[in-house]
Parts: sequence; structure tokens; C-alpha cells
Amino acid sequence: MATNDDLTDLTDRVRAFATDRQWEQFHTPKNLSMALAGEVGELLAELQWLTPEQSRTVMADPELGPRVRAEIGDVMIYLTRLADVLGVDLIEAANDKLTDSARRYPVEAARGSAAKRR
Amino acid sequence: MATNDDLTDLTDRVRAFATDRQWEQFHTPKNLSMALAGEVGELLAELQWLTPEQSRTVMADPELGPRVRAEIGDVMIYLTRLADVLGVDLIEAANDKLTDSARRYPVEAARGSAAKRR
Amino acid sequence: MATNDDLTDLTDRVRAFATDRQWEQFHTPKNLSMALAGEVGELLAELQWLTPEQSRTVMADPELGPRVRAEIGDVMIYLTRLADVLGVDLIEAANDKLTDSARRYPVEAARGSAAKRR
Amino acid sequence: MATNDDLTDLTDRVRAFATDRQWEQFHTPKNLSMALAGEVGELLAELQWLTPEQSRTVMADPELGPRVRAEIGDVMIYLTRLADVLGVDLIEAANDKLTDSARRYPVEAARGSAAKRR
Repeated sequence: MATNDDLTDLTDRVRAFATDRQWEQFHTPKNLSMALAGEVGELLAELQWLTPEQSRTVMADPELGPRVRAEIGDVMIYLTRLADVLGVDLIEAANDKLTDSARRYPVEAARGSAAKRR
Repeated sequence: MATNDDLTDLTDRVRAFATDRQWEQFHTPKNLSMALAGEVGELLAELQWLTPEQSRTVMADPELGPRVRAEIGDVMIYLTRLADVLGVDLIEAANDKLTDSARRYPVEAARGSAAKRR
Repeated sequence: MATNDDLTDLTDRVRAFATDRQWEQFHTPKNLSMALAGEVGELLAELQWLTPEQSRTVMADPELGPRVRAEIGDVMIYLTRLADVLGVDLIEAANDKLTDSARRYPVEAARGSAAKRR
Repeated sequence: MATNDDLTDLTDRVRAFATDRQWEQFHTPKNLSMALAGEVGELLAELQWLTPEQSRTVMADPELGPRVRAEIGDVMIYLTRLADVLGVDLIEAANDKLTDSARRYPVEAARGSAAKRR
């Protein structure tokens, strides 16, 4: 359960991690987007041979579960860092996009459908 | 600035969005990881021809800025949904990974270096 | 069916396409790798909500089939261009990696197994 | 330099590699697209902290060069396998897309421009 200011704390911690190592010079939005894509690629690699059904219970697997969780952590770290460097509020950006999607995919029309976006 | 329970609220809102449209059937971890990668791909496409320096000021561009923000919103939506479906706490997973990385990349050794991971 | 020098011809044609438009300046390996990832993301987006079984017959779908083929074409264009810019022979690089994989995954041990890499 | 039927030979070799190990069951287009994205992610990881200029000479680096070549080999293997499973001719699909792009980006209008697609 997320408690108060957890995301702000994480953002600060990731920033300090980079600053302590003098990595700001490498942390351009372009470079960070590549790092983000690299981590998502590692996440896909963990799930690629599972059936969709098997993937639903992957966290119960003593070997795969921790690996999937670690990859998700890496993705979140780079996404947080990218948003920080760009000055984008992650939660606001997601909420705005969700409002937009709600308009484009009205409940009645979209219900259970196989239309392209979900 | 993230306020109390923002991430929990976002998680709930994304879940309701999917449930209202009866999309849980499509939202397996495997499928969601593909959707996440697709959105990251769209983010890369916005930054691919910029120099790293140009990417630092992309948010000031009246055309590119809002597009980059929207893509980041999409990435965050799918990452939040994936973590929810898997029962993974995004903040905890990121913090645990960061603790692990701090051990693997000690400040003194990593400072300003061009070693593989940053 | 691939005929004589098809890949060489494609490489030349993609290079001329870039040169005619004075795009060599943008076609660094870094930028091209991002473009490649962007196109793979579009390919994933076409397949993300299909079951693995449905994906086997996607080419028979009058709407999805041509879209998947076009995305694969885009991926091949950027991969060809990237290899050309780097001076890497795509066929040789793939064959060398396949020889390496054959050593790491001996037939008897790997047969039908759910081990990580396939 | 690609010689006669090199791509056909590679396709056959990759297919035999999978068949010998009874991996056809895992090689659905959906799964293979994820594997392709995973390999592209590994390629990005090799280039992410380089400047675009540094990436132009990456093959001359005794450590990075072979790694980049190996990742490109992996990407080509999965792209070849995906096309084979779908019954798509890689060269034809790329050529058709290139013809389409030539129409959408006429030389005069596109020359040296920073328009979105290149």
C-alpha cells in the first residue's frame, strides 16, 4: 500500500543515486528512454515463453517471481528518473491520459470488444 | 508534487477503467508487458532523431512536449496496471532494486565512470 | 523465395533512400537502434491482445495481416540500415550467433524443455 | 557480401534449430515478437550511454564491437524465424514498405528535414 509521498521519496532517492555517482551527464531523456526500453526488454524476456494463463501466476514461481519483480523495479526506476529529468509529474500525466482514453473508449462501445486498444 | 495516496488512486482508477470495459480477460501480465513495450516504443519514436542535448529541452517544444508527456502517461498507466495484476508494489520493488544497485555500484568506484550500467 | 543478392539489393536501396534525403546525419547507430525499437513496438501492438494461438493465423486476417506484414517490413528496413551503417553482415552475424547457440543448447538437453532461452 | 540464397539458407537453419529442439510449440508469432523485442532491448543497452557520435565507431571498440554484432545477430535470428512462421518474405515486405515510404516522403520535401519520420 502506497503511503504518503512515496513516489516523491523514490524520485528523490533515484536522483541522489545518480548525483552521488556524477551520472547526470549521462541521464539525458534520450539516453534514459533507451535504458527504460532495455529494462522492458528484460521484463519481456521473462514472460515470452509463458502462455498468458501461466503469466497470471508467475509471481508464485519461486524462481521467476522475484526476477519479474526485480525487472518491474528497474522499469519503475528509469521511468521515475526520466519523468524527473523532464519535469513531468508521472501521476498527473497518467491521469490526464486516462481521462483522454475514457473519452475515446466509451464504456458501452468498448465493453469486452476486441478493438485495437485496451 | 505527489500527494497522499496518489499512486493508490491511480491504480484504482486504471483498474476501474479496465473492469468497466470488461477488459480483465485481456489484461494478463504477458499481454500487458507487450502493451508496455509498445508504449515505450512510441516514446522512443518521439526522441529518436533528437540529439541527447536536444532531448533535454524537449518539453519546451510546443509540439513535441505534449506528445512526450502523453507517451509517458501511457507507459505509467500500463506499468501501474501490470503491477496491480501481478500484486507487485511498484514503489517497494523500485526501492528494493535501488538498494541492490547501490551495493553493486559503490559511489567511489562508479563516480563519473563509463561502466556499462548507470 | 529469396533470389540472388536480394539482401545486398535491399541494403543498397535503403542506403540510397537515406542518401537522397540527406538523412545520413540522423542515421547514427544509436538513433537507428531507437527507430528499430520503435518499429518493434508497433509490431507488438498488433499482436498484444491476441492469444498465442490466434497469432498463428494472423496473416489470414484481412485487416491485421497486412498491418503485421508492413511492421515486419519496417523492422527489416531499420535492421538492414543499422547493419549497413555499422559494417556488420547481417547473415554472417546471425549464423555466427546460431553456431554459438547450438553449442549452448545441445539438442538432447534442450528438447521440448521450458528452459529460459529458446 | 551476401551470396546466393543466403537468407533462405539462414531461414532453413533457424527452422531446423527450432525443430531439432521441439521448440515449434513455443514459436508462436506472439511469443517470437516478444523475443525479438527482448533482443532489441539488449542491443539498446549496449548503445544507451554512448553519444550518437561514439556509436558511429562502436565496432572499433574491442569489447563493445563484438557484443553489438552478437546482439544484431540475435535480432536477425528472431526476425527471420518470425517471418518464417508467418509466411512473410522479409525482403519483399521491406521492399514494399520502402516503395510506400518513397511515396510518403518525396525527396524534395524531405531533404535534410527534421520531420518526424526518417
